[in-house]
Amino acid sequence: MPRRAYLHSLPADGPDDVSGFEALVNEGVLDPMTVRAVLGKTEGNGCVNDFTRGLATRAWHDALARHLGEGAADVCLVMSGGTEGALSPHWLVFGVEETDGEPEPGALALGTAHTEETRAEALGTPAQAEQVARAVRAAIGDAGISGPEHVHFVQVKCPLLTSARIAETQARGRETVTTDTLVSMGLSRGASALGVALALGEIDAIPDGAIGREMNLYSSRASASAGIELLGHEVLVLGRSDAWAGPMRISHAVMTDAVDLDGVSDAKAALDIGGAMRLRAVLAKAEASRSGTVRGARHTMLTDSDLSSTRHARAFVGGALGGLFGTTTLFVSGGAEHQGPDGGGPVAVIAERQ
Amino acid sequence: MPRRAYLHSLPADGPDDVSGFEALVNEGVLDPMTVRAVLGKTEGNGCVNDFTRGLATRAWHDALARHLGEGAADVCLVMSGGTEGALSPHWLVFGVEETDGEPEPGALALGTAHTEETRAEALGTPAQAEQVARAVRAAIGDAGISGPEHVHFVQVKCPLLTSARIAETQARGRETVTTDTLVSMGLSRGASALGVALALGEIDAIPDGAIGREMNLYSSRASASAGIELLGHEVLVLGRSDAWAGPMRISHAVMTDAVDLDGVSDAKAALDIGGAMRLRAVLAKAEASRSGTVRGARHTMLTDSDLSSTRHARAFVGGALGGLFGTTTLFVSGGAEHQGPDGGGPVAVIAERQ
Amino acid sequence: MPRRAYLHSLPADGPDDVSGFEALVNEGVLDPMTVRAVLGKTEGNGCVNDFTRGLATRAWHDALARHLGEGAADVCLVMSGGTEGALSPHWLVFGVEETDGEPEPGALALGTAHTEETRAEALGTPAQAEQVARAVRAAIGDAGISGPEHVHFVQVKCPLLTSARIAETQARGRETVTTDTLVSMGLSRGASALGVALALGEIDAIPDGAIGREMNLYSSRASASAGIELLGHEVLVLGRSDAWAGPMRISHAVMTDAVDLDGVSDAKAALDIGGAMRLRAVLAKAEASRSGTVRGARHTMLTDSDLSSTRHARAFVGGALGGLFGTTTLFVSGGAEHQGPDGGGPVAVIAERQ
Amino acid sequence: MPRRAYLHSLPADGPDDVSGFEALVNEGVLDPMTVRAVLGKTEGNGCVNDFTRGLATRAWHDALARHLGEGAADVCLVMSGGTEGALSPHWLVFGVEETDGEPEPGALALGTAHTEETRAEALGTPAQAEQVARAVRAAIGDAGISGPEHVHFVQVKCPLLTSARIAETQARGRETVTTDTLVSMGLSRGASALGVALALGEIDAIPDGAIGREMNLYSSRASASAGIELLGHEVLVLGRSDAWAGPMRISHAVMTDAVDLDGVSDAKAALDIGGAMRLRAVLAKAEASRSGTVRGARHTMLTDSDLSSTRHARAFVGGALGGLFGTTTLFVSGGAEHQGPDGGGPVAVIAERQ
Repeated sequence: MPRRAYLHSLPADGPDDVSGFEALVNEGVLDPMTVRAVLGKTEGNGCVNDFTRGLATRAWHDALARHLGEGAADVCLVMSGGTEGALSPHWLVFGVEETDGEPEPGALALGTAHTEETRAEALGTPAQAEQVARAVRAAIGDAGISGPEHVHFVQVKCPLLTSARIAETQARGRETVTTDTLVSMGLSRGASALGVALALGEIDAIPDGAIGREMNLYSSRASASAGIELLGHEVLVLGRSDAWAGPMRISHAVMTDAVDLDGVSDAKAALDIGGAMRLRAVLAKAEASRSGTVRGARHTMLTDSDLSSTRHARAFVGGALGGLFGTTTLFVSGGAEHQGPDGGGPVAVIAERQ
Repeated sequence: MPRRAYLHSLPADGPDDVSGFEALVNEGVLDPMTVRAVLGKTEGNGCVNDFTRGLATRAWHDALARHLGEGAADVCLVMSGGTEGALSPHWLVFGVEETDGEPEPGALALGTAHTEETRAEALGTPAQAEQVARAVRAAIGDAGISGPEHVHFVQVKCPLLTSARIAETQARGRETVTTDTLVSMGLSRGASALGVALALGEIDAIPDGAIGREMNLYSSRASASAGIELLGHEVLVLGRSDAWAGPMRISHAVMTDAVDLDGVSDAKAALDIGGAMRLRAVLAKAEASRSGTVRGARHTMLTDSDLSSTRHARAFVGGALGGLFGTTTLFVSGGAEHQGPDGGGPVAVIAERQ
Repeated sequence: MPRRAYLHSLPADGPDDVSGFEALVNEGVLDPMTVRAVLGKTEGNGCVNDFTRGLATRAWHDALARHLGEGAADVCLVMSGGTEGALSPHWLVFGVEETDGEPEPGALALGTAHTEETRAEALGTPAQAEQVARAVRAAIGDAGISGPEHVHFVQVKCPLLTSARIAETQARGRETVTTDTLVSMGLSRGASALGVALALGEIDAIPDGAIGREMNLYSSRASASAGIELLGHEVLVLGRSDAWAGPMRISHAVMTDAVDLDGVSDAKAALDIGGAMRLRAVLAKAEASRSGTVRGARHTMLTDSDLSSTRHARAFVGGALGGLFGTTTLFVSGGAEHQGPDGGGPVAVIAERQ
Repeated sequence: MPRRAYLHSLPADGPDDVSGFEALVNEGVLDPMTVRAVLGKTEGNGCVNDFTRGLATRAWHDALARHLGEGAADVCLVMSGGTEGALSPHWLVFGVEETDGEPEPGALALGTAHTEETRAEALGTPAQAEQVARAVRAAIGDAGISGPEHVHFVQVKCPLLTSARIAETQARGRETVTTDTLVSMGLSRGASALGVALALGEIDAIPDGAIGREMNLYSSRASASAGIELLGHEVLVLGRSDAWAGPMRISHAVMTDAVDLDGVSDAKAALDIGGAMRLRAVLAKAEASRSGTVRGARHTMLTDSDLSSTRHARAFVGGALGGLFGTTTLFVSGGAEHQGPDGGGPVAVIAERQ
């Protein structure tokens, strides 16, 4: 029997609001045994001291464990903080069911993988990227996707450095790549994205010193979020497979800068959203361009000491995508290091046949 | 001889950067005697303690006074803080020249007016609205616009309450409408907008207690910014007049919510931007909807104690308009009380024949 | 057998770090059945969207429930967000044991109580104050303290209004005292403090319209923290009783403004801290004075739109107390409405015989 | 005739409020020709995008120029942003008069110096430190102080890197020590402080790579503030000289951590403040300890992505000093890199004979 991917997009009244999930389970709409990944957009600041991610992870783990027991640990939980602007907190619950339906060309396929804990001194280095690349290959295998060219989005949840982890590493006589906890989030996201690029064949190798510096090295399909609530990685691969069934489809595009919607508009049209298909999810990365400009005009995201540039970027790119799609239920994640070109980022669009 | 309105959009390297203006004057492109208004989008927080507005006002006043002497006081200076997201700090220099060109149907026309100082106890009350309404009528007269239906945008700079002004009022045995300085900004903007609505015939009267509460009362063409740097009001009216000459045109639309671009897209098309005309300026208002939702999906702008809702809203609506127009040089101003429907706001688009 | 109060002050590595508690239980130092209240100073912003309080409450509830089952609900959990400046996140675990020791004059005594859920329309009104007053009286009875004059500190955890609760109330055709969620925190704290004042006989009645306005009405021994994570109140009373045993002692003082340490220094001396006794805990309230000044000098806490005044006040008063006591493990809570005079607040000091 | 130093401490109603200065001039109390330095504590965030410093500098320059013409450029203007907690915005106007009074042992003496513009690639390097050291020596000479051991405080205003300066440097094929504008503030302060240490003989040389890393290298008497409003340095040296006259005295101490008031209390007593002398000014540096702890207890200043650690530190140390001195008119400046030990900082106390 072929597999079929499903996706429930559920509103979140707070970082610990799993009532929508419980309701679907109680109504028999959703079998908790089939859940493979939960992506959450939570209302924290998305930076180092964002505990909404931890609270959401705890709430989902507890909710899943009530049904799955220890099996709850196999579900990928990827919480991304920050619903700036009008972005709406929500959950994307991905799962896989067996079906007696026929396989359909280009049906949505998904797979997941976890990594071991990453040592603090490896964070932000090619070793982390290689660790992620192995997990991405495993997740592609899990999805049965026939080749990296059929992968449309890879979501990675990666760890960061805390003051305690840095001190512990130094106590062992080792160095971390940075002692700034906020900087470590960017380097971890960057290393993870280059790991995706390696696995997808977008790059062949990671030159010395490239992570966080050579921003022309990137993946067009990676999205990485760093969080304090895990020490290894969670990987979710989304793509197309002719062996899968069901009405769900995916496409992706790259924004080349914060106001570039050309590719996303094309992806929207290609999926025939508003026609035969209706929108189910948008996943995007956003960041402030390092050049300090967008199309030649200065931005102030990097010099605003009151407000992290990632918060600025999520709000703005959220607005751009919101204007295009007419909704604020958008999974826009900040910090797009090595995820699309500098100042831009990848966007995945998921739709369902009406 | 007919009049011709001009508009220079100049980048700002900082709140006190008037070098672009000086260059145009030095090159003979711009005659400082013809300047009527300068609108500035500066990189502060746009809230109570945003001193970029005062710094910009001081820099522009000094620059104008070098050329105009005391006549500098006649130029409307409207500084609006907040370039969240990728919004770019910039100046819009509006002026009026006599020309030997022919009048053109629907040419851009503009007029300005000032009010007296507003007493602290009148701020946020119908008395402030009526004061503004008189100034708007005066500015329409100044522009020679034949009727309020030809007005497309009214920009008002209005005062706010400071702790010192509140204390001084109480010492006189009087009350202010609020003792919260941030709240006073919204009430001042709201009263100003209803003053515009009165002058344009959009409403007939202001019911008791309506300011800040009955948000279905609004102007579709008002934009108000509050600032600590003035005690009265500055008013700029933009519209169309068949008696004016020149290649500049204006249109306007209303966003009904933070993701509604339908009207703005129509205005863009009506002006044939990208065709015979090129974009010169976009002026918009943004705010968080009081309902706490956008198209049914919860937003978190009103419960984020780290970040003012006006900063959220400017960033997001800036992104929506940036995605549509492909630029970040957008004059998006926060706090749209009685300026368009709750959660939405008016948008003016100015274009020039190529 | 007399009762003996104990207090464990435990560092917190994060809002969900209960490892110190678990260690004490595992070592047999602490019997979880004897725990009566946990006060937590967590590292959030202390305002509306501070989810560290909810995460901490969840972590403690889970930890206690592992030992106590449903009895965990009887333990008062009072989480106060905000460790600004050098303040250190920590837990204060209060408990009561039976002892065969002799009663000692003035020994620390404690009692707790809960209230029912407070309706949203009662929040910030005299009805809330009376509800709290009843709970305080119950907690005094629980402690067996012989009269209100022997009560030295009352900690109340109280609810706040959320956008959802306000909307639900309006849907029922009722009004809440405010529609601003941040404002609701202050009104809830104020009503709770006046409830303490009623119970302690510091005031006789609450005049109409006094809550949040007549700041000369206050309790010298109340500390209230508002949080999104509860709908009723948790009350902890700390005082002296000759019927209790053990080496713990308490005293209190009132800071009349943000730099007034006279009373606190006296309390420190009266307890002979640094002599026969060592410091175990400091609990204090902090707030920005509404006058906008401290001893005639202007402060900017109420006009800083980037940073809540409660964050300013906690940091500053934390510094004042830190300089006096030589430690940063201080339970400084923000928002002292009706808790001490305007701009000041009550301080409790707990010490133990060396 | 001997010289006499004076100091006026004036409240500031805003970053551009020079009315107190004008009043003193108009009353004949202060001769503008004798002003040597103005230190301002302004109400910005004290970080990169703090334009209150620029506004204050502009307001003071204009005010001085009305009296001094081009001579206004010789007055040191040192604006330090950030009045967190209850700290009060104020100006310290230092000047020198000739007097027919007798020299007094240990009288307050002061001198000033400026440096040339610092190239962006030198910022944060030993070259900057040496540039500052030369200026400090010049200022000591200007003050006629007999040796570095009689210097009690050196205030330096230093430049920072902006996105534009970094880009311009890279365009010339050169590198700056950092591309993070906020980081550049700390490196500039650190290099300036080590320049003071060189000039005062506190250190002999600056090892390679020491700036911003070897925090055990420091000056006990340096205070550096970085700002966007200048490209070189302004230096003010305060010390004692038996050749000067007048009732002003100075002492200094070092805080070893954020709660260490031992040395400051000693300095207060040594000056007999509250006895024969009254307090006129306190100048202090504050910072978050890099260890992440104060006396073993964790702080959260370095992991709070909503609020710069310098804002936390100013508020807290302001509170500690406010509790000791009973005033909020304290010049507490953030970012104490190489200014006192890690997590601590120098403090100068100025008093006047009653």
